[in-house]
Amino acid sequence: MSESAYKEMWENLNLDIAAHDGLLEVLGKFYGDIYMTQEGRLKGMEYLDFVLSEVHGLRIKELMDAKAEGKKIIGTFCVFVPEELSLAVDAVQVGLCAGADAGTEAAETIVPRNTCALIKSFIGFKMAKICPYTESCDLIIGETTCDGKKKAYEAFGEMAPMHIMEVPQRKEASDRILWKSEVLRLKDKLEEVTGKAVTAESLKKGIKIVNDKRRALQRLNKLRAAKPTPISGRDVLLINQVSFYDDPIRFTQSINTLCDQIEERIAKNEGIVPENTPRLMLSGCPMAVPNWKLPYIIEGSGAVVVAEESCIGTRNSRDLVDESGETVEEMIDALCDRYMKIDCACFTPNNERMDNIKALAKETGVDGVIHYSLMFCQPYTHEAFKVEKTLAENDVPMLAIETDYSMEDVEQLKTRIEAFVEMIS
Amino acid sequence: MSESAYKEMWENLNLDIAAHDGLLEVLGKFYGDIYMTQEGRLKGMEYLDFVLSEVHGLRIKELMDAKAEGKKIIGTFCVFVPEELSLAVDAVQVGLCAGADAGTEAAETIVPRNTCALIKSFIGFKMAKICPYTESCDLIIGETTCDGKKKAYEAFGEMAPMHIMEVPQRKEASDRILWKSEVLRLKDKLEEVTGKAVTAESLKKGIKIVNDKRRALQRLNKLRAAKPTPISGRDVLLINQVSFYDDPIRFTQSINTLCDQIEERIAKNEGIVPENTPRLMLSGCPMAVPNWKLPYIIEGSGAVVVAEESCIGTRNSRDLVDESGETVEEMIDALCDRYMKIDCACFTPNNERMDNIKALAKETGVDGVIHYSLMFCQPYTHEAFKVEKTLAENDVPMLAIETDYSMEDVEQLKTRIEAFVEMIS
Repeated sequence: MSESAYKEMWENLNLDIAAHDGLLEVLGKFYGDIYMTQEGRLKGMEYLDFVLSEVHGLRIKELMDAKAEGKKIIGTFCVFVPEELSLAVDAVQVGLCAGADAGTEAAETIVPRNTCALIKSFIGFKMAKICPYTESCDLIIGETTCDGKKKAYEAFGEMAPMHIMEVPQRKEASDRILWKSEVLRLKDKLEEVTGKAVTAESLKKGIKIVNDKRRALQRLNKLRAAKPTPISGRDVLLINQVSFYDDPIRFTQSINTLCDQIEERIAKNEGIVPENTPRLMLSGCPMAVPNWKLPYIIEGSGAVVVAEESCIGTRNSRDLVDESGETVEEMIDALCDRYMKIDCACFTPNNERMDNIKALAKETGVDGVIHYSLMFCQPYTHEAFKVEKTLAENDVPMLAIETDYSMEDVEQLKTRIEAFVEMIS
Repeated sequence: MSESAYKEMWENLNLDIAAHDGLLEVLGKFYGDIYMTQEGRLKGMEYLDFVLSEVHGLRIKELMDAKAEGKKIIGTFCVFVPEELSLAVDAVQVGLCAGADAGTEAAETIVPRNTCALIKSFIGFKMAKICPYTESCDLIIGETTCDGKKKAYEAFGEMAPMHIMEVPQRKEASDRILWKSEVLRLKDKLEEVTGKAVTAESLKKGIKIVNDKRRALQRLNKLRAAKPTPISGRDVLLINQVSFYDDPIRFTQSINTLCDQIEERIAKNEGIVPENTPRLMLSGCPMAVPNWKLPYIIEGSGAVVVAEESCIGTRNSRDLVDESGETVEEMIDALCDRYMKIDCACFTPNNERMDNIKALAKETGVDGVIHYSLMFCQPYTHEAFKVEKTLAENDVPMLAIETDYSMEDVEQLKTRIEAFVEMIS
């Protein structure tokens, strides 16, 4: 499709074309610097490069085509929103722009300055009219995973069609009941918005598609941890990011193809970096596109990231939905069980996360962990203390980083990360 | 009781005596400056002065005596914990120290620096061993009202016996069910800790005692708003603060006596300040003892506070528990209904708060509102935007303040508040 046809599409979405052009230019440059400079990349990454180059183009065109066919677009900001249900009503679910400083000044007129960068970003993208995903949505699903999002959605909801899911804060029987009622309320809402019913057949298909995506990511997460490391941490982060945007079936196929190539590389004992390169886990807050700052600094400091313990990482793919259900009721229960396994810092206690981090550190044989919190993210900054303690008990060193989307602290972060890498080398 | 007997009591509570002496000295000086310098105070305030002067002395002695009689002490940090249930198992419920910078450096080793002052305070008081209330407790009840507290309680719980109540985040039918299960779980816990059962008789009595306390505070809140203002805002804040510490029956009697005196004053058309003094509402986060910074600045800037829209204010006394229940089940339901009316910023949406603020502004005839948020308190800093908008629609000007417990910003706050008072005069 030509650039002018895209422009027309963006205009129809009521984007601020000049501001959006500026964003794409920065994004392209940033991607080039961080991704295209890498050596020895797998052929399968060309697919990801293409997806990223068309992230506001071809993929949006697909969404528009889907809308023309009567499908609805459902936007989300969180792994608690079951894509299975959106697929079961023949809708397309996409993650929304939240990974770059955009419209921050405008955002700060409706949410406090001491709000995390991710929240200010999605508010800013909306106010600046530069996220074609947000503007394509027929419905945006928020959730109560943190105070910042919970309250920001009230302001966001005045600008966009929203539905809020309440995520419980503990994992007792009564929380499971609340969560099930919220999953059912979402089902009703999706049926209302799409005019289509969730059936046993459509839900079974939705569950299979999303599980297959998770299986591909699980396969990737296992393979990436080989020694020597066959793929850069940046590339795997990108794949996890794209898993929220791309068509799930096409994505799964592409990642499985990539995994075949990784297996070939492993068989030849080839790595993207020397075998003795310090291996790190990134743990903590999600990194939405194009938030590649920290992995770029880490992998420029002589280390390699071999595990992502985050929502845009293992937290989103670790658990499958049980596929044995036959009725809608049974499958809804299976969905509820699976989503209540998420070890988000919104829960208290959240000991599962400590267990999962310990296990992941062991499985992937990391030399250290970098815990990443968005500044002002209370759930993850609090849990960083617990993670550090847990890892220390297992003789895994940890560095706690708090940052945002600005580039002001890059030099300072480099210094700290280089010192950490040196320490664990 | 002599000073040395107190010292022995504090030593038995394992307080850090030197640090605690330092705290009492600062507190005494602060109280003298802020409270004892006021002119034309009501005679009934002598009771409050006495309570404050004995806040770590006689009142703690009473708690120790209660413990000696086999009663249990239950500590809280939030208006969501039903005192009715504690009274129904013959326990004493007290609010814990959270209103002063204490042990902040220690606190920041286990919770993030970007945590609100109230949370760092209760952690710091515990780590510095200077809150005799915290040290007296047989059980401390936390709640999930905000991310900061929810996660900080995990760290706090490693130092003190805790029970966490989950407060839901919306007010749908499923939330009422969750809340009821949490109230019942608390009842079970209190029965277990005290070895006493909640009976229809004991719960009815508990409800009556707490409702009577609320009725006295409602009476006070109505009377304080007379023109000219019969009592300073500082004094009413103090009364609200003491309502969390003192014996509820004695407190209610004392406040009703004070209200009789206020009525006499009103009948004589006497005020604590000239009739044309600008009248302000304070709205937002709770101010725990001895957090008197903002009211002191406001009332030193030529204005008077005539309403407190906060948990240590109208939010805690506005709604009564229905007293018609006869069975434990009926009374538990009445409790649930009453507590779910709390218009805390933890709920989404929380439109009741906007309605209540509008109504309170109208009833008390304020010239303006000062919205007070603790720095890093996400629920209230977010809602400040909505409150400002709501008030603007009703032609009530608002000033939004974010601060903490330090004295560093006092001059800056003075300048801003004086300018605001001048604007509305």
